[in-house]
Amino acid sequence: MRLMKTCVFFLCIAFLQRSMAQEATTLNAGMERLKLEFVLDRSGTPNYAVYFNQKQIVKPSALGFALSDDSTFYKDFELLGSEKKTVDETWKPVWGEVNQIRNNYEELTVHLKHKGVASRYLDIVFRVFADGVGFRYVFPNQAALKYFIVTDEFTHFNLTGDHKAFWIPGDYDTNEYPYTTSKLSEVDAWKLAATATDIAVRVAPDQYAVQTPLMMKTNDGLYINIHEAALSGYPAMQLHVDRSASSLSSSLVPDAVGSKAFLHAPFKTPWRTIIVSDKATHILASRLILNLNEPSVIQDPSWIKPMKFVGVWWEMQIGKSTWRYSEYADSTDANGKLIPNGKHGATTENVKRYIDFAAKNGIGGVLVEGWNTGWEDWFGNWKEDVFDFVTPYPDFNLKEITAYAASKNVKMIMHNETSGSATNYERQMDTAFRFMNKFGYTSVKTGYVGKIIPRGEHHDGQWMVNHYERVAKKGVEYKVMVDMHEPPRPTGMQRTYPNWLACEAGRGNEYNAFSKGNSPEHETIMPFTRLMGGPMDYTPGIFKLKNYSPEDPTRQVHTTLVKQMALYITMYSPVQMVSDLLENYEAKPDAFQFIKDVPVDWDDSKILEAEPGDYITIARKEKGKDNWFIGAITDENARTTNIPLDFLDKGKKYIAVVYADGDKADWKDNPESYKIQKLKVDAKTKLNLKLAPGGGAAISIMPGN
Amino acid sequence: MRLMKTCVFFLCIAFLQRSMAQEATTLNAGMERLKLEFVLDRSGTPNYAVYFNQKQIVKPSALGFALSDDSTFYKDFELLGSEKKTVDETWKPVWGEVNQIRNNYEELTVHLKHKGVASRYLDIVFRVFADGVGFRYVFPNQAALKYFIVTDEFTHFNLTGDHKAFWIPGDYDTNEYPYTTSKLSEVDAWKLAATATDIAVRVAPDQYAVQTPLMMKTNDGLYINIHEAALSGYPAMQLHVDRSASSLSSSLVPDAVGSKAFLHAPFKTPWRTIIVSDKATHILASRLILNLNEPSVIQDPSWIKPMKFVGVWWEMQIGKSTWRYSEYADSTDANGKLIPNGKHGATTENVKRYIDFAAKNGIGGVLVEGWNTGWEDWFGNWKEDVFDFVTPYPDFNLKEITAYAASKNVKMIMHNETSGSATNYERQMDTAFRFMNKFGYTSVKTGYVGKIIPRGEHHDGQWMVNHYERVAKKGVEYKVMVDMHEPPRPTGMQRTYPNWLACEAGRGNEYNAFSKGNSPEHETIMPFTRLMGGPMDYTPGIFKLKNYSPEDPTRQVHTTLVKQMALYITMYSPVQMVSDLLENYEAKPDAFQFIKDVPVDWDDSKILEAEPGDYITIARKEKGKDNWFIGAITDENARTTNIPLDFLDKGKKYIAVVYADGDKADWKDNPESYKIQKLKVDAKTKLNLKLAPGGGAAISIMPGN
Repeated sequence: MRLMKTCVFFLCIAFLQRSMAQEATTLNAGMERLKLEFVLDRSGTPNYAVYFNQKQIVKPSALGFALSDDSTFYKDFELLGSEKKTVDETWKPVWGEVNQIRNNYEELTVHLKHKGVASRYLDIVFRVFADGVGFRYVFPNQAALKYFIVTDEFTHFNLTGDHKAFWIPGDYDTNEYPYTTSKLSEVDAWKLAATATDIAVRVAPDQYAVQTPLMMKTNDGLYINIHEAALSGYPAMQLHVDRSASSLSSSLVPDAVGSKAFLHAPFKTPWRTIIVSDKATHILASRLILNLNEPSVIQDPSWIKPMKFVGVWWEMQIGKSTWRYSEYADSTDANGKLIPNGKHGATTENVKRYIDFAAKNGIGGVLVEGWNTGWEDWFGNWKEDVFDFVTPYPDFNLKEITAYAASKNVKMIMHNETSGSATNYERQMDTAFRFMNKFGYTSVKTGYVGKIIPRGEHHDGQWMVNHYERVAKKGVEYKVMVDMHEPPRPTGMQRTYPNWLACEAGRGNEYNAFSKGNSPEHETIMPFTRLMGGPMDYTPGIFKLKNYSPEDPTRQVHTTLVKQMALYITMYSPVQMVSDLLENYEAKPDAFQFIKDVPVDWDDSKILEAEPGDYITIARKEKGKDNWFIGAITDENARTTNIPLDFLDKGKKYIAVVYADGDKADWKDNPESYKIQKLKVDAKTKLNLKLAPGGGAAISIMPGN
Repeated sequence: MRLMKTCVFFLCIAFLQRSMAQEATTLNAGMERLKLEFVLDRSGTPNYAVYFNQKQIVKPSALGFALSDDSTFYKDFELLGSEKKTVDETWKPVWGEVNQIRNNYEELTVHLKHKGVASRYLDIVFRVFADGVGFRYVFPNQAALKYFIVTDEFTHFNLTGDHKAFWIPGDYDTNEYPYTTSKLSEVDAWKLAATATDIAVRVAPDQYAVQTPLMMKTNDGLYINIHEAALSGYPAMQLHVDRSASSLSSSLVPDAVGSKAFLHAPFKTPWRTIIVSDKATHILASRLILNLNEPSVIQDPSWIKPMKFVGVWWEMQIGKSTWRYSEYADSTDANGKLIPNGKHGATTENVKRYIDFAAKNGIGGVLVEGWNTGWEDWFGNWKEDVFDFVTPYPDFNLKEITAYAASKNVKMIMHNETSGSATNYERQMDTAFRFMNKFGYTSVKTGYVGKIIPRGEHHDGQWMVNHYERVAKKGVEYKVMVDMHEPPRPTGMQRTYPNWLACEAGRGNEYNAFSKGNSPEHETIMPFTRLMGGPMDYTPGIFKLKNYSPEDPTRQVHTTLVKQMALYITMYSPVQMVSDLLENYEAKPDAFQFIKDVPVDWDDSKILEAEPGDYITIARKEKGKDNWFIGAITDENARTTNIPLDFLDKGKKYIAVVYADGDKADWKDNPESYKIQKLKVDAKTKLNLKLAPGGGAAISIMPGN
């Protein structure tokens, strides 16, 4: 102890000599129970700390960068000045979980001058909300810093203990891992990456890096969520875990030459976000990430329409039909024409069946995958010129399908799989979007399965982040809604581009189709992790939960049927697939009624109960109507819960239809058992719900006597 | 000696045991004095040797590859069979040095089976011409080799001695080095790369690698030229020099992940070419490289029109005016508009001056660089979104200029500088070419100055080779002729894409404008090296050879004025810039007459004299006319030569105008001295020419009395 103090003393001397050391400076900002402390320490390193209810949540944590021409851009700063302001405003999202959002924060901006290779300037902007903190770096316009390269960002999150964490590996190319719940000190990304053989491309070079949103729970019951907001022009941030110190630090996904970001001042980095509460429900209810994003760029969003859709998709995921038309690219006849394999899913006839079903059941859209040439050898070759996005297979009669869908008032959903070849897609993007306009496709699902081209780039690096935003902008230009698969996990950019309806960027229901699948707790974690940044195209609604795979009869979905229904509420998205085979819905019209009824856009949402990894119960009010829908899910454990319906209008009468797990239902042996009960309810009603192991409950509540 | 023999004996034993060694197999092909020998040696390695006049030119040299999944794809082959055929055909180029080309060769195809990780097949096709050999690898369609990655190509050229070589460094990103003449054993690329600070981007990781075409001369007076033909879908080949063994081996330019080529069978590599003769003039007259390229893809080439052009260009190269409109990107006024620097070259007024001059002097086109926004910070930042290719600066009135040029029957030449950001160009290429069509631009000069984006790729790697071909194809699609600056050096692809008129891809005249310039011997080497693969936009015709640079009055062009005129003949190209400032031509209308007269497309060409590094004299006959033009150049040494005009029609009378160096002319102190003499000549005339040090002669010969 004595020795330590001496060391510190000598260090101070050293600083005094080396950098004319200044006194440490402290600034503050706060909002309700949240407090942010900024400290420029005596070495000129910016630090911040976060307090909740006067308790330190993040210990003093250093901020800064290494630039390619100055490795010291994290110290030797001096404080030029600071500003504070308070904002309290309300805005209306084009679509969402609620119809208006309050944006209330205190902002502290610190202006720093760096005494390194040149006089350079850096601002850091902190916004303190009632439920957390966001901060970003701002490189102002300045003489000595124009074009520059970030070789590292040193943003630290020094935590106060070895928290329980819900995490996936910090992989440069995928977010599709199953979640691990462990102490931070037990994080081991490589262990997961090595076993996750059901994921096509895995690049996780740091054994101790995790992906964000990182959900944590402290020993004393606080919930902390770390992520980023407004990821634009910059690589995605992952977190390196110092397992012994319980400290996290930013780890940016590198580019093909090992740099992190090529920037041009003025530039604002994405926000680093810390959401804190003593209630798990507050985490899910937080709008902090959306609030930190820029307002919509779309003046007239009337063409943006949330919807449900069916599609030629699950049948291919389970191996019943194929994306490809021919078995091999060189399976050609004497005239060089592809020989059909007889299992192609995207045939005119089959697509019409889906259109009929959608029309009959009031489902807005039909997605068709595998409609276009190139699927015989699309994957795994790091091939650049894979698809052209406009040439249908011979058994997909585009004009006939277009006319048929139009006659039934059903929207066809375009599918543009790129195979990771972003350069090829960029070359043809205008052609592809013009094609959509021409044939009346108002939305597109994009995909990036495979290693990225430009080779050496990663899904989550700066170049691809720019690419995905270009696609979103192209959608704005052509009035096409976009649902991206395999981008980085969202960061609230859907506020800025409301046509960017949803992303996959996580482990979807599809893993139940083609691999060992998702655990029963999976969907109780995802809203706290992947969904914190934005909607997910999770593809719920599987009714046939066992014996669906011709390839492997032991495969099953790890939920009950009713839990699949509840996911339409608990996994928020403005586009929700009605994913199963049509015949599986036709076999259970009473249960299917809920899926027909449930909307995808909301006036209000109430997070009634939640515990990551255990359970979630949410009630949502349909946009522009008096209908409420409740979804409740549990993990592998059965659960009984009482739900007070006090959010209903006082005095008003409602009819609730309760879709519940059957008495002997359980996800493993009896997943498809359900029961339906009609009840008269009002604001004073308490609903008693029993959820089977891996089960759920789904409830529609509509005005009526 | 005894020891050696024993060693060889043991090696044989080893081969017998290791690979069930076969007997060596030998096959032959030949044409006139050229002979090719193919040997599959006892280790199953394919080898070839080349003989000229029964003398070995290339000693047995190994062929083969390393693939990413099989490092032994250069040995353990067995010979399945072989075929021979002879071809003798004639074809007509759309434009060129001659109006028809004989393609006469004997072809030997060997079919090999590899006994490695799988049964795989490789063909090697040899074509033996009277003046050399070409060979390529062919990966046939096959079950065990579909998509694959070439990690190395092992093509050897084992030479018979330490030849004199004319070389530039094997740089991944530039061909703009000055040439070094040295023994192969003295090659040192790093020495050159370190000093060539006038080249923006230099990446030459191999100290002993040189660029092709590599021109060599043996001690006994043979000329050997090694290059490649039909570079498509594959990286450029450079040559690693084993200095002690006088052996060269292929060194492919790598991609961003360190691979050489991503291929898909069936695939044909470019041809490796060896041109041999005992006469240097035969090297320049060879059509071997063109013959090895595929025929034109353009059915109706009537829109392809070779031409001369002036341009707003040299004035910027010498620093008189600027590409940029404003001094800095952030030099903006209160309204955010750029503040002009007062030196912008591409103004409407200035461009009209060039249009007037072109119209008056029968020059077909006007190039304007710096017409579009983005030049304030276009270079050196590895910036991706630099130019948009369609937005003019405020002082460039596009519509007015378009109308004015049309009224004067002058073609405007588009300029698309990419700054090396190929991804940005690819995204906007359709827009850019549509823009050209809309405003009547029938040709475009493209540029790639800077480090390539996709970052990690190189100008000469597979990805960019594909890019340049895409640009050429885009030109075909939009009927736009292309002149590419900073691509790999040409390989005869202008046969296939005759709209791909010329490339820079070498050290042009421009280096005299902004750097220490080119040596007096430079232009006597270039036709033997850079120009072997195709035309160069060298930009000859500078009349003011000293005191032109406001930046550095000591700069000068290292030729006489007449040599600048002779370059229109000795540096063949279907597009030739008339490069100097207009006032410098207007000051010397008598000399300028030659430039007005000289055409850019030919019925015939006679290489009258040539020695690399010393001198070149060429006579060419104008396409569709009876006019002949002669260009003669020398290096730093004065030269006297007698030129028999026996190529003229017998008995026909001609008037020759001889543009000669003045009696006391020399490149250094008196470069602009010239004299003009009119002579009556016929097929029996011998012209006596005196070339000053660094000088030349230019002669027009037209029918008349």
